[in-house]
Amino acid sequence: MLCGPLGTHIFCRGAQMSNELLATYAIPRQGDWPRRAEEMAVGMTVGSWTDLPALEQERLTAFLGRVTRCDAVSDDWAHVQIAYPAANLPPQLSAVLTVAFGKLSLDSPIRLVGLSLPDSWPKALPGPHHGAAGVRQRLGVPARPLLLSIFKSENGRTLAEFAHALDQQWAGGADIVKDDEIFFADQAAPLGERVRAARDLASSLAARSGRPAPLYAANLTASGDRAVDQAATAMAAGAEAFLVSPYAMGLDTLAALSRLEPHPILLSHPAFAGAFISTSGHGVAASVALGVLTRAAGADIGIFPSPYGSVALPRAEAQAVGQALCGPAVRRPALPAPAAGLHPGLVPQLVGDFGSDVVINAGGAIHGHPDGTQAGARAFRAAIDRLSHPDGPVPPELLAAWAKWGAGPR
Amino acid sequence: MLCGPLGTHIFCRGAQMSNELLATYAIPRQGDWPRRAEEMAVGMTVGSWTDLPALEQERLTAFLGRVTRCDAVSDDWAHVQIAYPAANLPPQLSAVLTVAFGKLSLDSPIRLVGLSLPDSWPKALPGPHHGAAGVRQRLGVPARPLLLSIFKSENGRTLAEFAHALDQQWAGGADIVKDDEIFFADQAAPLGERVRAARDLASSLAARSGRPAPLYAANLTASGDRAVDQAATAMAAGAEAFLVSPYAMGLDTLAALSRLEPHPILLSHPAFAGAFISTSGHGVAASVALGVLTRAAGADIGIFPSPYGSVALPRAEAQAVGQALCGPAVRRPALPAPAAGLHPGLVPQLVGDFGSDVVINAGGAIHGHPDGTQAGARAFRAAIDRLSHPDGPVPPELLAAWAKWGAGPR
Repeated sequence: MLCGPLGTHIFCRGAQMSNELLATYAIPRQGDWPRRAEEMAVGMTVGSWTDLPALEQERLTAFLGRVTRCDAVSDDWAHVQIAYPAANLPPQLSAVLTVAFGKLSLDSPIRLVGLSLPDSWPKALPGPHHGAAGVRQRLGVPARPLLLSIFKSENGRTLAEFAHALDQQWAGGADIVKDDEIFFADQAAPLGERVRAARDLASSLAARSGRPAPLYAANLTASGDRAVDQAATAMAAGAEAFLVSPYAMGLDTLAALSRLEPHPILLSHPAFAGAFISTSGHGVAASVALGVLTRAAGADIGIFPSPYGSVALPRAEAQAVGQALCGPAVRRPALPAPAAGLHPGLVPQLVGDFGSDVVINAGGAIHGHPDGTQAGARAFRAAIDRLSHPDGPVPPELLAAWAKWGAGPR
Repeated sequence: MLCGPLGTHIFCRGAQMSNELLATYAIPRQGDWPRRAEEMAVGMTVGSWTDLPALEQERLTAFLGRVTRCDAVSDDWAHVQIAYPAANLPPQLSAVLTVAFGKLSLDSPIRLVGLSLPDSWPKALPGPHHGAAGVRQRLGVPARPLLLSIFKSENGRTLAEFAHALDQQWAGGADIVKDDEIFFADQAAPLGERVRAARDLASSLAARSGRPAPLYAANLTASGDRAVDQAATAMAAGAEAFLVSPYAMGLDTLAALSRLEPHPILLSHPAFAGAFISTSGHGVAASVALGVLTRAAGADIGIFPSPYGSVALPRAEAQAVGQALCGPAVRRPALPAPAAGLHPGLVPQLVGDFGSDVVINAGGAIHGHPDGTQAGARAFRAAIDRLSHPDGPVPPELLAAWAKWGAGPR
C-alpha cells in the first residue's frame, strides 16, 4: 500500500471498518493522485474537513469518508478505495450509485472497479431469496448446468405461436425459457394469458414426466414504479419467474421485486449496462454492475455477456462477474448466466470457465439448429450430459450442432 | 444520405414516420456498416426478416424496425438512424432504454447520439408540468437568469444549521436553494422538518419583501419505488420542489413524480450519468441522457455539467444538452442548469453560451465568497443584474468575487 508520496496522508489508515460502503476506483496515476483520493473521500461525505473547527470535526467524524487503500497498479493507473460510513446512506442501491458514483462518475476518467456493501445491510437488502440452491430445488436439478432458452422474435406473435415455441423448448429439455427483454409488443399474447398458457403446459409436462415442472420467466414490461404491481398480478395468474432489466428500470425495482411474497424467481438482464461497463478506463466494472449490485438487488440468476460471442466481455471480466454473483459472500449465491454466442460445442469450455453451477443461456443456437428448436435444446442437454458421461454415445442432435457450429471453441 | 454501398438496402427508406421511436447511433465506419444498421433494425424488433414466409412478413411488418438514415460523418464514424414502431413499446422510458440501447449498448463501440420519442406519447409522458415558464411564474421572475444555490456539506448537520444556511442563501438573493444530491444523512434534520422550516422561513421572507417566496428543493432519498410516497408526504408538509437523480433512481421514477398532483417542481441531477456520457466513442450522448430523456421524464430544471469547471462537458455538448432541454419540441421547455465551476465572473459567458433562460447553479463560489454565503449569493445576483445594466455601479460583493475568481473566464 502506497499512502501518498510520503506515506503520511491522514486519511489513509488502511483498516477496514465493519460497517462502511467500500468503493474502489481506478484513477489515472497522475499528479498527486493520493490527494485526489482524499479529496474524493472528504468531498463525497462532509465536503470539507481541515478548515472545520475542532468541535465540528468531532461531531462530523461519524460521516467522514476515509481512504483505505492507495495502490499504484500499473504505470498509468492507481486503485484507491474509499470507505463511506453506513450512516451516510440508507440501505438502497440508488443511494449507493449516488454516493459512490454519482458526481464522481462525471469526473472522467474514473472507473468504479470494486464495491462492498455495509455489513449492516443484509436485513434490508437480503439478496437472492431463492439463489442457486433454491432455483435448483424448484427445478429438481441438483448439480448439472441448467439450460435457459430464449424465445426468438416475440414481438407481435400470437398466444398460439408463443405456446408452440414454449412447448418446443421445454420438450427439448430447457429448464427455463425466458422472454426476450425487448418483448413489449405482446398485444396478441398478453402477459396474463402467456402465464396461464405456460402454467397449463408446464403442469401437463410435469404430469407426463413425473418431474418438477420447468420454468417460464416473463419479461416485466411495466414502468419501474409499477413493476411490483405487474408482478403481483402475474403471480396471481401463476407466474413464478420474471426477467427484469434493472439498469433500465432501476436497481431499486429489482430489489423491491425480491421482497414480494411469495418470492418470484428473478432473472436479471444486462440491458443498458453496456453503456457503462464497456469502456475500460471509465464507467463501472462489469463485476460491480452485473455482479455485486445485481446480487445485492436480489437476482437469482444474473445474465451477463459471455466471453465467446460477438457481444463479448473479456474472459477475466466475465469470470469476475460470475465470481461476484456466486462466490463466498454474506448473501446467497446467485446463478451466473453468461450469454451470447453459446453453442453446444462450447459447453465444456463454459463449465471450465464458470464451473458447473452455471446457467447456459442460449437462443440462436437453439432455434437455429438444423432440425429445429426442440432438437436445438436437445443438443445442449446432450452436451451437458456428456460432461458427466464423456464416453457415452453422441446423439444425432448434438452431432448436427457440432457440424454447424463446431465441437469446441471456434 | 448513403444507403449502403449500392444504395439499394431495402430498409433504408429515409422517410420519417409520424409515430416511431427514432434513435440515432454513432458506429464505426468499418466493414459493411450499413448492413450492421439493418441487422440492428431487424434484430431489435422482429429478430429476422428475409427468411420469414410472406404471410408472416405481412403480419409483422407493423413491428419491423427501419433504417431511416445512413451517413458517414467522418473517416472513422457513421451515423445511422433506426425507426422503431411505437407499437413495439409502451410510452415509458425504461422501455426506451431497453429497446433503443439495451442489448445494443453491449455491442461496443456504439454511441446513442440522438433520440426522438413517438408522436403519440406526450399524453402518457407529457414532460415538464411547470417548465421554464411555470418556474418563472412561481418565482415572479419573468426574464433574468435564475440563481440556484447548493447547500454545502449537509451530512450530519442539525436543523438549526440547515435553517441558518438556507436563510443566508435566500437573503443573498438565491431564487432556489437545493440539497446536495449525496445528502441522505439527515438524521439531525429530517426531510419533513426541513420542509416545514423552509416553508416558515420562505413565508416570512415573502411577507417582508412583498415578493413571491423563494424555493427550497429537497433531495428525495427514498428508493425509486417509494419516491412518489416520500414526495407526497413531504408535499403535505409544504414541500414544493424536489431534487431527483433519475439515473440512480430510474427515469420512470422521475416520470412518476411528474404525474403527482399537485405537481412538484422537479430538478434533475446527473448523478451516475457520467458513467455513460463521458466516453466519446461509446455510451450515450449527454444531449440524449441529460436533455431529451430528462425533459421527457418531466424535469422542470435539468442540471448538467457546465463547460467551465473541472468536471466539464465540452462546450458544444453542454450547449446541445441545453438545446434539448429548452429548444422547440412537443413538450414544454425545461430550464437548463449548467453546473460546476461557476463564479460570478462567468455569468456573461454562461448567458452567451446558453441564453438568459437559464439557471445559474452554484455552490463553491457562493459559500466560498470572502465575505460569506450571503455575500456570495449577492455577488451572483449583482453579476446577473449587470447583464441588463452593464454600466451600473459594481457592489463590493461582486468586486470581491472578481478579485478571488476573476472577472471573466479563467
